[in-house]
Amino acid sequence: MTRLIKSENSAISAHESAGRERAAIATALSDWGESTGDEAISDISDKLGVMLAEIGEQEDIFAQNLEDSRGVLKQIRNMEASVQPSRDQRQKITDEIAKLKYKDPTNTRLVTLEHELVRAEAQNLVAEAQLSNTTRTKLKEAYDIHTAAVIERAEKQILLARHARRLLTLIDDSPVVPGDTRPAYDSEEAARQVLEDAENDLRSWEPSVEPIDVESVATGRSGVKVGNAVPSSSKQLEEPAE
Amino acid sequence: MTRLIKSENSAISAHESAGRERAAIATALSDWGESTGDEAISDISDKLGVMLAEIGEQEDIFAQNLEDSRGVLKQIRNMEASVQPSRDQRQKITDEIAKLKYKDPTNTRLVTLEHELVRAEAQNLVAEAQLSNTTRTKLKEAYDIHTAAVIERAEKQILLARHARRLLTLIDDSPVVPGDTRPAYDSEEAARQVLEDAENDLRSWEPSVEPIDVESVATGRSGVKVGNAVPSSSKQLEEPAE
Repeated sequence: MTRLIKSENSAISAHESAGRERAAIATALSDWGESTGDEAISDISDKLGVMLAEIGEQEDIFAQNLEDSRGVLKQIRNMEASVQPSRDQRQKITDEIAKLKYKDPTNTRLVTLEHELVRAEAQNLVAEAQLSNTTRTKLKEAYDIHTAAVIERAEKQILLARHARRLLTLIDDSPVVPGDTRPAYDSEEAARQVLEDAENDLRSWEPSVEPIDVESVATGRSGVKVGNAVPSSSKQLEEPAE
Repeated sequence: MTRLIKSENSAISAHESAGRERAAIATALSDWGESTGDEAISDISDKLGVMLAEIGEQEDIFAQNLEDSRGVLKQIRNMEASVQPSRDQRQKITDEIAKLKYKDPTNTRLVTLEHELVRAEAQNLVAEAQLSNTTRTKLKEAYDIHTAAVIERAEKQILLARHARRLLTLIDDSPVVPGDTRPAYDSEEAARQVLEDAENDLRSWEPSVEPIDVESVATGRSGVKVGNAVPSSSKQLEEPAE
């Protein structure tokens, strides 16, 4: 889990960096367009830059959502870490009992140890149930957020890229012969409309995914059903089996 | 343009790196799932890993498409670089004429220089037309590829993420109480079906975008209409104006 969380972190950095670089592309494109001294190229490349910057912005929002998903994975890691001592404790007592039984089978400490083992096993059973519940719930939750973020980024970037393509069609690239001047650029209004349409579409975007049903209502912070902290099924362990 | 090409290169690296990191996530997730010793978590996280790896693969294909787009931008840069000497040459002759007219207006070299200027201007007119045609055509072409790649990645990742979400619903996360065992995992077949559906969808994916109409049929390698290499409109320049 630690390695997974680390990989997620590297992926998040890569997407953040992609977002930043896309913003740099937008600026470079707009600056270059202006430097050509060509009104049409200047206007379209400037507006195309705006669209590419917004595509980069979505990359950045995506990275933030992945960070949220990663935070949920950390809850699994923390639970894994907190369960380990209870496993170790149970194992330690089991080992001690085995050793004593071999060395000094009539030692009265055996009775005490067996009572301790029962308590350790009960504690471990709770811990394992907490781990199982947390693992399943949080794994679903983490990748619910992760995959929903993939879809959100994708849907918004499709929307932006489609409008960007409309801008490209406004570039008149019919070949000119040397000495001829091109017809005056008259798509400024149309280009502005594309930006406006894109903004409106982005504003009215709504998630298309249904949230994944995750059990959480009846569970407390521990990941075990509230009211069941003393498990009925561990009653058999209230007395040493042996 | 050089700066734009550089920014594009950095963005490409970032997406490549994101693709690699997503593959690492897939492996880490699958390994972790196996280490839990929980059949359900192991199976689902393994298959979820396959889907996330495929999402990463799409990120990598995206980077390759951006590289193609970048290659087209380089054609603009090269044309810009090749036009500059013709601008310099014209300017140099113009300056020389001005200097001579001031210093020695009757010098016979002036006639020679003015003939040279006519030739330089004709050459420059061709170069500027080539630049204008190349800039417009290649800008459209480069961002046609670029935006189509954004859409392709997005559509394929949506498809994969939606199937990944189906996998998540197969995780039974109803809370267990300590000591209880979960019902046996029986969604292996369903999970396998999700992978198969995703593969089929990916295979049958087709581009949804119409290619952007780019002028290229009637133009030669030079970016100027074939058959117009000697421009009619530059005839006025066949004799020195002054």
